[in-house]
Amino acid sequence: MLKNKITDLLTIKYPIIQAPMAGGITTSQLVAAVSNHGGLGNIGAGYMSPQQLRDQISEIRELTANSFGVNLFVPNEFEASEDEIHRASSFLQPIREQLNVSETLSIEIPEPKNGFIAFKEQIEVVIDEKVSICSFTFGIPSSEVIDLLKQHNIILIGTATTVREAVEIEKIGMDMVVVQGSEAGGHRGNFLDGSQNSLVGLMSLIPQVVDRVNIPVIAAGGIMDGRGLLASLCLGAQAVQMGTAFLTCIESGAHNVYKEAILKSHEDQTVLTRAFSGKWARGINNQFIQNTEEHQHTFPEFPVQNTLTQSIRKAAASQNNQEFMSLWSGQSPRLAKIQTVESLIHQMIDEAEKIKV
Amino acid sequence: MLKNKITDLLTIKYPIIQAPMAGGITTSQLVAAVSNHGGLGNIGAGYMSPQQLRDQISEIRELTANSFGVNLFVPNEFEASEDEIHRASSFLQPIREQLNVSETLSIEIPEPKNGFIAFKEQIEVVIDEKVSICSFTFGIPSSEVIDLLKQHNIILIGTATTVREAVEIEKIGMDMVVVQGSEAGGHRGNFLDGSQNSLVGLMSLIPQVVDRVNIPVIAAGGIMDGRGLLASLCLGAQAVQMGTAFLTCIESGAHNVYKEAILKSHEDQTVLTRAFSGKWARGINNQFIQNTEEHQHTFPEFPVQNTLTQSIRKAAASQNNQEFMSLWSGQSPRLAKIQTVESLIHQMIDEAEKIKV
Repeated sequence: MLKNKITDLLTIKYPIIQAPMAGGITTSQLVAAVSNHGGLGNIGAGYMSPQQLRDQISEIRELTANSFGVNLFVPNEFEASEDEIHRASSFLQPIREQLNVSETLSIEIPEPKNGFIAFKEQIEVVIDEKVSICSFTFGIPSSEVIDLLKQHNIILIGTATTVREAVEIEKIGMDMVVVQGSEAGGHRGNFLDGSQNSLVGLMSLIPQVVDRVNIPVIAAGGIMDGRGLLASLCLGAQAVQMGTAFLTCIESGAHNVYKEAILKSHEDQTVLTRAFSGKWARGINNQFIQNTEEHQHTFPEFPVQNTLTQSIRKAAASQNNQEFMSLWSGQSPRLAKIQTVESLIHQMIDEAEKIKV
Repeated sequence: MLKNKITDLLTIKYPIIQAPMAGGITTSQLVAAVSNHGGLGNIGAGYMSPQQLRDQISEIRELTANSFGVNLFVPNEFEASEDEIHRASSFLQPIREQLNVSETLSIEIPEPKNGFIAFKEQIEVVIDEKVSICSFTFGIPSSEVIDLLKQHNIILIGTATTVREAVEIEKIGMDMVVVQGSEAGGHRGNFLDGSQNSLVGLMSLIPQVVDRVNIPVIAAGGIMDGRGLLASLCLGAQAVQMGTAFLTCIESGAHNVYKEAILKSHEDQTVLTRAFSGKWARGINNQFIQNTEEHQHTFPEFPVQNTLTQSIRKAAASQNNQEFMSLWSGQSPRLAKIQTVESLIHQMIDEAEKIKV
């Protein structure tokens, strides 16, 4: 039971993958614990400098001999006019003042070319450090990058929100695909289809993707326990990827206020917003989301808006103020627990093995 | 396998329920075929007069000796000012003209009290005709209605989109609850929570409801085959309710153009709209939905808007024009087939029994 092409390829005991959450959540302790207890740990390296990534890989290698993955954001072309940035920044100014954030003028707006340079350098670290698994969010890298990684026998995983995106991921030669259901917390991974159309629930998404691609499918979105694991396998997936469930684990780097906010939330209290980063993402509703709801369509694209809100999120975190933090969460917060990674994985497997239908 | 409290209570062979789709889809042939082949057929009686309901019950009884259900819309209080109605009607007028619909002034706007009178009469028919199963959408009937139906030993099924709604359905004394995931086609059944917040995918919704109520749970939304059936059971549901899968069956009364539109659709081509009826519902995107998108928030509530668009939907159907029909569909249209009810049910059971995880 629970052995398949994915567990073989990734050399893991259980078909359980820890979602690569960016922004300090995937500590070395979290990644190593997942890999040590039979799953696949993943570094959410999207926002990391090459050196930070290199350092974390070394640190994890001291904690586990098992394989783990690195997840990168595929950079997107973007345009943001001075005027658009100025308007967004002015809109955010009262929130900065409320949180006593002084640095308004020092915001360094990213440039598209810098994103591509950083991505190329991250890829070099992955190859240099002989990381065996590399996954991507927000799109598909160029075929040059794919070929380079494949020459080094690195297993490649794409992220799709629709059948069409999964087909493109297979076509470029990736080895497996994460299908992100509408239940998923955090950023939407859509890159071909609009963010609204691509909000497809896993009950619909998994079988429709499985019927159209030959590479193995990993289910992501709202999966928290053995029930979700077994249901995903019934639908045709070969593994699950879980974010929120690992985020509230003791080993995760998520702020305690953030963990507590998830534990207190209900299934109908997450919403989609683009106000934090410029990309649509699912998180627990709070004052920041409510204050920006009417204006969110005017905000600049990712990663510009992300930069504009950085000081707000940072100040809110240091003030333990959940109302202005990005509290990404999937739609199953009632199933979240504070526990060790070991306990989460073992309870999942025990539960899955006991389900009789 | 596949035997549980729901199959016992409903006296059905398989835990498969045909969703009660209103508006002529649930023909007597469809309802009877489902009940004859081991599932539970349901009359979508929401828009029916007491006499129409009585007639269909008699007709189905000539076709099956097995039990079947009747589904009713719980009437809602609503307000619609003359001005609001006039504005909506004016907005729709160019569409009426495009379809050569003449009757503009003859529209009879419903009154709240009529909805409550019709509901009371429908309940009387259910009792009179000794229908053994009655389900409700759009809310919870008064405890007087519940008590009356229970005195006649009628099994009662509510519809919920959130944990809170499921808890209320249990509290008033219903026997089981349909949980409607965000994947579901047709009208949203939310009655306590806003339509947007209550868009929870089944992977999240089923286990969170199951953990909070003691009555058995029926999963609805995007389920089309044995994979969806088994996945729902893994998540803790005891049966599935399927709309789109039965809608494209040969026995269903859906327009051929409508069935064909589903067969040609993809998982990312359904959208939520309130422009057809005044209540949010999921259907295949078309010209009517696109034309009304910007204005839909200004349209009057259900059932007033439904009445205003009736002639448009009727004319479009008679002209085989799918662009102005309401093409309700769940998020799994790629899994739809034109087939008999017998073939659908038997293939589902065969498939479910073969799945090994």
